[in-house]
Amino acid sequence: MTEVTRTQVGIVGGGPAGLMLSHLLALAGIDSVVVDRRTRWEIENTVRAGILEDDSVRLLVETGVSDRVHREGIAHDGIVLRYGGESHRIDFKGLVGAASWLYPQTDVFVDLANARARDGGDVRFGVARTRVVDVMSDQPGILFTAPDGVEHEVRCDYLVGADGSHSMCRLEVPESLRQHYVREYPFAWFGILTEAPKSAPELIYTHSPRGFALISQRTDTLQRMYFQCDPDEDTDAWSDDRIWSELQARVAGPDGLTLHEGPITSKTVLRFRSFVAEPMRHGRLLLAGDAAHTVPPTGAKGLNLALADVRVLAELLERTFAGQDVLDEYGPRALARVWKAQHFSYWMTSMLHTHPEANAFDLRRQLGELNAVTTSTAGSTYLAESYTGWPTGR
Amino acid sequence: MTEVTRTQVGIVGGGPAGLMLSHLLALAGIDSVVVDRRTRWEIENTVRAGILEDDSVRLLVETGVSDRVHREGIAHDGIVLRYGGESHRIDFKGLVGAASWLYPQTDVFVDLANARARDGGDVRFGVARTRVVDVMSDQPGILFTAPDGVEHEVRCDYLVGADGSHSMCRLEVPESLRQHYVREYPFAWFGILTEAPKSAPELIYTHSPRGFALISQRTDTLQRMYFQCDPDEDTDAWSDDRIWSELQARVAGPDGLTLHEGPITSKTVLRFRSFVAEPMRHGRLLLAGDAAHTVPPTGAKGLNLALADVRVLAELLERTFAGQDVLDEYGPRALARVWKAQHFSYWMTSMLHTHPEANAFDLRRQLGELNAVTTSTAGSTYLAESYTGWPTGR
Repeated sequence: MTEVTRTQVGIVGGGPAGLMLSHLLALAGIDSVVVDRRTRWEIENTVRAGILEDDSVRLLVETGVSDRVHREGIAHDGIVLRYGGESHRIDFKGLVGAASWLYPQTDVFVDLANARARDGGDVRFGVARTRVVDVMSDQPGILFTAPDGVEHEVRCDYLVGADGSHSMCRLEVPESLRQHYVREYPFAWFGILTEAPKSAPELIYTHSPRGFALISQRTDTLQRMYFQCDPDEDTDAWSDDRIWSELQARVAGPDGLTLHEGPITSKTVLRFRSFVAEPMRHGRLLLAGDAAHTVPPTGAKGLNLALADVRVLAELLERTFAGQDVLDEYGPRALARVWKAQHFSYWMTSMLHTHPEANAFDLRRQLGELNAVTTSTAGSTYLAESYTGWPTGR
Repeated sequence: MTEVTRTQVGIVGGGPAGLMLSHLLALAGIDSVVVDRRTRWEIENTVRAGILEDDSVRLLVETGVSDRVHREGIAHDGIVLRYGGESHRIDFKGLVGAASWLYPQTDVFVDLANARARDGGDVRFGVARTRVVDVMSDQPGILFTAPDGVEHEVRCDYLVGADGSHSMCRLEVPESLRQHYVREYPFAWFGILTEAPKSAPELIYTHSPRGFALISQRTDTLQRMYFQCDPDEDTDAWSDDRIWSELQARVAGPDGLTLHEGPITSKTVLRFRSFVAEPMRHGRLLLAGDAAHTVPPTGAKGLNLALADVRVLAELLERTFAGQDVLDEYGPRALARVWKAQHFSYWMTSMLHTHPEANAFDLRRQLGELNAVTTSTAGSTYLAESYTGWPTGR
């Protein structure tokens, strides 16, 4: 026995992109069903980055998801670029009147999941054997097995793949029509969580001949830090002492900056790549967020780009259901921002990381660039407006 | 018989850097002797680039070299970045209130050589067997054979190497103290001169999947154009027809931009690299211009950087002769600008050229960057201020 559900928009993936889309559609009177193979518990317990653009915060608050980000998030009015052992602050507030927000992605997820539950949204976590079918027909479908073993079939007018970087929906675009754009990096991030007080009030992006390091914060007692490592680095080879000694060496300088050390409660190697899949629309299938593109973490664009995608997609789906023939606009409008963000993420990554094959010229040129950016109001503004987010729809 | 001359500053190299230094020193009451192995005729008949920053133009006019640049030079209030077959103008005047000047380097040379002759400067062209000696002593020397066969020895307090990218003076810095920073590029420029009317009022820097192209101007009837080629490209393999067809293909776009064709009177493959030699001072030897650093031509920084060097050097030599101990400032002050210019030249080169190993992602990311720069006032301003030149001494 298969239980059949009819909805306007079927959404595969219950992360921030899928849930935000479902929320925005509900505000427009459009019903949707969201399915995710992960349980709520699994998603809530995955450590993810947590930097939100001003527009992402506004989207959460102004559409009524929650204003918790205003109470528990921390607005950062700038970041520090550190190189040659000296700190150079980029003053977001002064340069572009914007901030970036420290608010973990899992909290964004919790807020969205609670809002969907509050508003009676249909979200199915922990489903198994998900398949999508008939994407080129008028009534594409999602088939899955619920946690209680019952077989389900969701039929919808439009099907959205918000199912992350290993997207199954993406594969529904025939290979002959699908173009993948990929740039691999010969380095990764070694990420730690440590029980220690904050070492700095704002994020410190550090260039060092030993490689990149990022000093970031979580709470008053828990901090997140990263340092550039080999993609095949073995976390077991890194004792707490060795990690602290490496991090301290990367930020060291004449100003005596020293990190507050504490017990390290988590060690992970985070690999990343630049990736875009085109087209973002195929028939009645639409891709959003990581399913269509991933960026290196430098510059923290991933989650923000996913939210920007679904903001555009919700608007176009609403107009489509109102009878307008506008869905073709989705790809071009979303991709204009995607490629700017791809460039920004690549730029921040290549400006701050040490390439294994870099020679002495490349290292000095990076310092020349960092010096050019930080001593130029225009250069700093260009970075600040990219980091805090371009205006919606740009 | 050796004829011995005593002067305060001995300058090897009679190009724009050496002559401008000699001119500035003369204004400060400091005498110098300039020697160059090339004849005036040779230098005047070497085709070189010709884009001057506002500050370079001011230096020529305000120090009394000549105001011909104001009469015969052409102020460009912007450049065009062309990509995806569309032109996007960077409005220098509107963004930073500055211009860049089209004025061939050979004209800069002629103005300087005439000014030095007018003011009784001691400049010896066409000398042979030049050697520099005793650079670590109080009285370094330049030995050479004059065109009439007479042996000369110039003894000076300070010796300046302004002898170009193949500098002989640079080799006087012991290898153990000398650091070379080098970045090679897997492409070169195919440059032509053509007898044709202007195809555009301002320079067009073109990104194309076929590779970079630069449409520039000389006069109303003579134009200079370049296209990216293999460093080992054979000019004989390129008929006029083939060259025009390649150039037209690189600038082609929906707006129908077409270049005015004419007879091609010169074809050259220009190789380039990024290069910096440090230190720029060793004892009483000082290096300036191409002797210490070269840049790729994209962004036209070479000549401007040489003039910026000698402006700093003239000031510091004047203060040194007045008894101040300031010559140690030369390297750090000059190099701060050098590395910003190195980065800018690298940036313009890598943003606009097609790397032989570039994949589809890299090409789209370049378009994403060009789009980010041209649609952002801050991004355009950052480019404009770098192109037209940072303020003196920065």
